[in-house]
Amino acid sequence: MVRAMQIDGKPWRTIWRNQSGGIGIIDQTRLPHAFETLTLRTLDDAAVAIRTMQVRGAPLIGAAAAYGLALGLTEDATDLGLERAHRRLIETRPTAVNLRWALGRVVDAVCALPPEVRVATAFAEADALAEEDVAINAAIGRFGAELIKEIAGRKPGQVVNILTHCNAGWLATVDWGTATAPIYQAFAAGIPLHVFVDETRPRNQGAFLTAWELGRAGVPHTVIADNAGGHFMQHGMVDLAIVGTDRTTRTGDVCNKIGTYLKALAANDCGVPFYVALPSSTIDWTLTDGRDIPIEERSGAEVTHIAGRTKDGAIATVQLTPDGSKVANPGFDVTPARLVTGLITERGIAPATEQGLLRLFPERARPKG
Amino acid sequence: MVRAMQIDGKPWRTIWRNQSGGIGIIDQTRLPHAFETLTLRTLDDAAVAIRTMQVRGAPLIGAAAAYGLALGLTEDATDLGLERAHRRLIETRPTAVNLRWALGRVVDAVCALPPEVRVATAFAEADALAEEDVAINAAIGRFGAELIKEIAGRKPGQVVNILTHCNAGWLATVDWGTATAPIYQAFAAGIPLHVFVDETRPRNQGAFLTAWELGRAGVPHTVIADNAGGHFMQHGMVDLAIVGTDRTTRTGDVCNKIGTYLKALAANDCGVPFYVALPSSTIDWTLTDGRDIPIEERSGAEVTHIAGRTKDGAIATVQLTPDGSKVANPGFDVTPARLVTGLITERGIAPATEQGLLRLFPERARPKG
Repeated sequence: MVRAMQIDGKPWRTIWRNQSGGIGIIDQTRLPHAFETLTLRTLDDAAVAIRTMQVRGAPLIGAAAAYGLALGLTEDATDLGLERAHRRLIETRPTAVNLRWALGRVVDAVCALPPEVRVATAFAEADALAEEDVAINAAIGRFGAELIKEIAGRKPGQVVNILTHCNAGWLATVDWGTATAPIYQAFAAGIPLHVFVDETRPRNQGAFLTAWELGRAGVPHTVIADNAGGHFMQHGMVDLAIVGTDRTTRTGDVCNKIGTYLKALAANDCGVPFYVALPSSTIDWTLTDGRDIPIEERSGAEVTHIAGRTKDGAIATVQLTPDGSKVANPGFDVTPARLVTGLITERGIAPATEQGLLRLFPERARPKG
Repeated sequence: MVRAMQIDGKPWRTIWRNQSGGIGIIDQTRLPHAFETLTLRTLDDAAVAIRTMQVRGAPLIGAAAAYGLALGLTEDATDLGLERAHRRLIETRPTAVNLRWALGRVVDAVCALPPEVRVATAFAEADALAEEDVAINAAIGRFGAELIKEIAGRKPGQVVNILTHCNAGWLATVDWGTATAPIYQAFAAGIPLHVFVDETRPRNQGAFLTAWELGRAGVPHTVIADNAGGHFMQHGMVDLAIVGTDRTTRTGDVCNKIGTYLKALAANDCGVPFYVALPSSTIDWTLTDGRDIPIEERSGAEVTHIAGRTKDGAIATVQLTPDGSKVANPGFDVTPARLVTGLITERGIAPATEQGLLRLFPERARPKG
């Protein structure tokens, strides 16, 4: 299945090479109020786009970083230039592990080559990585859609209600999304479904991005305050929760957008299955405890101010907090594996345990001895 | 202790009789962006003020409804007028139980009297109810401050960190607040403390009201997204959670602002004591199961739009969700008693059980037989 996501009937991806040699992206900081594309031409453009979240979402960050490294090599293809570009990009977002993974892949592909062929190789590697992301997410979608079909089979003729947090949609990847891939595939297969979309303060990626992309695809959905998901779970109105992850330990702890932990607790308390969808590139095989994942502290301005659309269609930023009140803004939290029903990967669904993951990824077993 | 709360040094209450015969209120829908007072002159004024949350918070709603009934009687003091005013006010907010309790008190005080003396009696009863609210909250503050002092005693020289949700502050009552009364009293006693203030979407009463009133009183505080509280609890950065309640069952289930349940789950998971502060008028002695409490579904506009202050100081409303996305907006959720460490009442602190509450309120025991 290789159908690309569409915006109002036109196929789109979140990142592409354009004819001028630059990298095209959708400026996700303008959604849903405006749909605008940008071209990245330099290392600096790429680093700023990642840091300011014009591109965001673990898989898309990886692809953007890979292209950013290629752009960096167009400026300086020496070992020093490679190292500088690598360092610059790795510092943009400390939590996302497949940023590091993607950069590592491009570095590995070019570092033994003479500088004059590095640029072309880096772009080719970034292209390959982007294509793989599409294939991986399509596979996640196939496995996850089976879960949705199973639930639909237990309540024939009724709508399957799915809750998601933040945006792990196609906007967070090159295409399909991770948490949304099962939703899009089940929807395409005719399963009646409805998605509760957590607003996801402070950056509102649920309200701004997930609601927007589900709307463009015609998927029925309802935006709710982050506070409301527990209530709907208590009342039997959620059949399944699916979220993404920025980093997952080999033991199944999941580091995802702040607030994920609270929804996992509620799902656990209410007997709602809580699944996490992930490309295996987001697994940090070196970690056995989620508490060791560095949590990005983001700008307080994300809490104190918000941008929205005024009555006359302009985008305006307004201040929400009183002058003089301090704010804190951790970007992620860690959901312990005990609260996760299963991990939906490109190789199948695993229990959130080391044993479960190693059954799907046996090559990651630690050498005995 | 009868010190009234202050705004920048000047004592204030949230509701008062003014010299023209009207009822003065602070228009809480304008905070923190503007501080404006309003005068209620008619039943309709009072009903609109409660419905649109110009006054809000269970105890303040009770006081405002009592005055509203008195205003209604100035328009029509007959039995029919009394009944009409009672019905009009009771329909404004379905969840708050002490709205009903306060109205019941005024009705009981006037219904046997001839119409010509009802107005004066109703105002006197509303005055008494408002004064009692101040005394009750001061008592809640004394009992709750002991909890904070105990924690301070276990970590000498260190700051006690308290998390609260929504606004159960003096703005939610006639004075002192419920959840904030212990905070204000411990702060006045010199205990070093800091308050994590949940933003409390969708109406942002934490960011708009609690942060504002803590700021006016000089209490150190940090506004956080509703999503972040669990993370801070996981990291040992919260010593105690205190929230308010709009209705509490005789078995200790607590119906409070949407999202309270999620924080109670996190507190429970992280071993953080989770207390609920309440005047006993918010206890619904007829209920033994929180699931029987009607949950107010509020306007979707509270989710789709938000008002804030623009750079040039104007108050502007901006749209947050994409056109065409549905929203849902339950105003409250129910936290089961098993997640509540204790109930801080005007008579002391009770375990969140029927037995615990009856030990403090023995007059509520059901006749045996």
